[in-house]
Order: sequence, then structure tokens, then C-alpha cells
Amino acid sequence: MNIMRAGSDRSSRLELASMRIIETRRAPNPRRVRVFLAEKSVPVEFEERDMMEGALAAADIRAMNPWMRVPILVLDDGRTVSESVAICRYFEELYPTPALFGSDAYSRATIEMWNRRIEFGLFQHVAQVVRHSSAKMAAFEQPQIGEWAEANRHKVVPELTRIDAQLATAPFIAGEIFSIADITALVAIDFMKPAKLAVPETLTNIVRWHHAVSQRPSARA
Amino acid sequence: MNIMRAGSDRSSRLELASMRIIETRRAPNPRRVRVFLAEKSVPVEFEERDMMEGALAAADIRAMNPWMRVPILVLDDGRTVSESVAICRYFEELYPTPALFGSDAYSRATIEMWNRRIEFGLFQHVAQVVRHSSAKMAAFEQPQIGEWAEANRHKVVPELTRIDAQLATAPFIAGEIFSIADITALVAIDFMKPAKLAVPETLTNIVRWHHAVSQRPSARA
Repeated sequence: MNIMRAGSDRSSRLELASMRIIETRRAPNPRRVRVFLAEKSVPVEFEERDMMEGALAAADIRAMNPWMRVPILVLDDGRTVSESVAICRYFEELYPTPALFGSDAYSRATIEMWNRRIEFGLFQHVAQVVRHSSAKMAAFEQPQIGEWAEANRHKVVPELTRIDAQLATAPFIAGEIFSIADITALVAIDFMKPAKLAVPETLTNIVRWHHAVSQRPSARA
Repeated sequence: MNIMRAGSDRSSRLELASMRIIETRRAPNPRRVRVFLAEKSVPVEFEERDMMEGALAAADIRAMNPWMRVPILVLDDGRTVSESVAICRYFEELYPTPALFGSDAYSRATIEMWNRRIEFGLFQHVAQVVRHSSAKMAAFEQPQIGEWAEANRHKVVPELTRIDAQLATAPFIAGEIFSIADITALVAIDFMKPAKLAVPETLTNIVRWHHAVSQRPSARA
């Protein structure tokens, strides 16, 4: 098992040592949770199950998450939480600093708004391209529909253009502060590579932002 | 303009009278917010813009939400919040009781999990059927792909079956307490009608749950 350790000594966090997150390391959604935990310097144990080798059809995974998706957070008492953002929110409650979901009513609302704009826009379009055009994804997406892959491919640059306009006004996706919306956007943009898509160089605000967030230590988590 | 008034007198809430929510009343996402506010007895003013008549392409809507979607919450000072769940979260912060997003770390995480399972599963499949099979939606979804509508149509019953299994163990989607996940599921299931889909009578737990949540006064909001 792959243990992620924070750089600093935080003995108060050792009680987390026996919980774990089940993931497929190379998939994009588990990366969202790893980056989130790295930003908070929370060490959690990871257990690898490779979805590409059919590991998510195992009976124990089905029992924990009938949707057969990772990541899955397993708590010390055996209770589980699925869905990347739900797992992140759990850790936000336990370790509120730095706040990655916002710190007052308006910032919490606007970070939720931006995270959803990225998820239901850019991230989903990129994911649909991969799921409907990669032969490796045939086990997860039936039927694969080439026309749907192409329709989504054409929606990526318009999404990026709207995000670029926002980044012309603020350093981060949801404004002045790095948030979960930046993590979602980073993972979505890096997932463009297997979709054979690239950020146009004319979108200079995204290029600047992507360079900056990729330099953060958490981006390597 | 359509003013929604709570049944009870809550003078402390009158400061909300000059904020408003821009919506298309017959669309499913604005209904999520109306049901949420009705559950909290928060009166908010609504302003109708009919997306089916092209109203969301107006310059003021584009400026508020470049994604050109409703609902949009406009605050007294002109700031705005888009995305239904972000708007709901804003009101949850202002009016925490009854808690519809959970009341501790684990319940907040599991409600987020269930809300997302419904959104990215059932609700999205139903919406894709409507967007890709209804001639009226051609202005919003190009290209419309019949094969994709059919692929989503076939995924609805498997989603309902997983939800039925959960409702065999608990009165509400996320467990013992009515939550935003129930609102999302109610709206998704009622949106099956324009998709020409129906809940199989064999899914008795969903039938029981749907009857119960439809009886709540908020369901008519």
C-alpha cells in the first residue's frame, strides 16, 4: 500500500493512520482527493485497485459503492464515503485550515458554483471524449458513440474561453483564494492529454494559471 | 413577478425581500431551489425568464452567468450566484435550520455523496434523454444524437434500482433525515415524465418514497 506522508510533523493527525482511501491512482477523480489532502497536509493511507484491470467489480467494492467508482474513503469504524467532492468535504470539516471550500456564506456559494461550472462543463466534456473515443474505455462505457465524443470535443475550447475570461479578473478560478475549484480545473485540464486535446496558447490567463498551480507541491500528489 | 411567500410570519426574514432569483419556472433545476427554500420557509422573489423563448441569451444574463443557465440568485448588492446547489448552500448558511446539507462531518459528506450520485446518475441520464430526443431542445443541444438519448434511456432503470436498494434501508435518500438529495431525486424522477419514462412498480421503495416526498407542501413550490 502506498502511504502519503505530509512533510511536517503533525502528531495530532496520526489518528488518521488507520483510515484509508481506495483508489485507482492513474484515474483523474482520485487525483482530486490526493491534491486536496496534500494542500491540507493530511496524511492518509491509499489502497490501489486498478479499475482498468476490472478491480472495481469486486464484491467488496460493490458493497461499499454500488456505482463501482473510486475513490472510496473507508473510516476506522468501517463506514464509507464515495464521490471525490464528498470525501474532500469530510476532510474540510475535520481540518478546516486552509479552507478550500470557502470561509463565509458567499465564498462557500461561489466556490461551489465554480467547482460545478468546471465539473459539469470542462471536466465532463473531456471525460466524455475519453470515454467515447478510447478503446481502453470500452469496458466502462457502452455503447461508445463516436459522434458524442466529437460533440464534446468541440465544446472544450468554449469552456476554456469562459474560464480564461474569469482568470483575467482573478488569480484563481473562484477568485483571490486557491480552492477546490482550482483542483478540479487542474485535474480536468491535465486529463485533456489522454483526450488528445490542448489548451490554445491564445488563452494566456489559463496558461499562466495552469503553470502556477502545477508548481504547487500538491500537484504531484 | 411571482412572489413566493412562506406560510408563517417571520419578520426577521424580510431583509430578503429585495434579493431575487432569476429562473425559468418550468425547468427542473429552478424547481430544486424553490423546493429547498420552501422547506426552509424562506420567502424570495422570483423573476421569470423563459429559456424556451430564448430569454437566457439576453446580455444581462450572459453578464451574470456566461454559461447562460438558470437559476441565478441576485443579492441586494448586485452580486450573483449561479448553479442550483450553490444557491441552496448559500441559503443553508444563512438559515441553517432545518439542515438540508447535514449537521456534522459524516452527515454532510454522505448527503453530498448521495446528492452527487443522483445528479451524475439518474438526473443526468434523464436530462440527456430530454435534451437529445425532444425537438424543443434543439436550440440548446447541438448536435442532438438519438443514439446517445437511447443509451441514457437504458441507464435509468439501473440507476433507479440502486436508489431503490438504498430506500429499502432508510426513509430518505441519504438516510434518516430529509435532505437536498431527496429534492434532487424528486425533481429528477418528476422530470422522467417529459422524457417518456416511468418508475417500474416493482421498485416499491421508490414508489413509497416518491409518494411521501410528493405529499410535502414543498413539492408544489
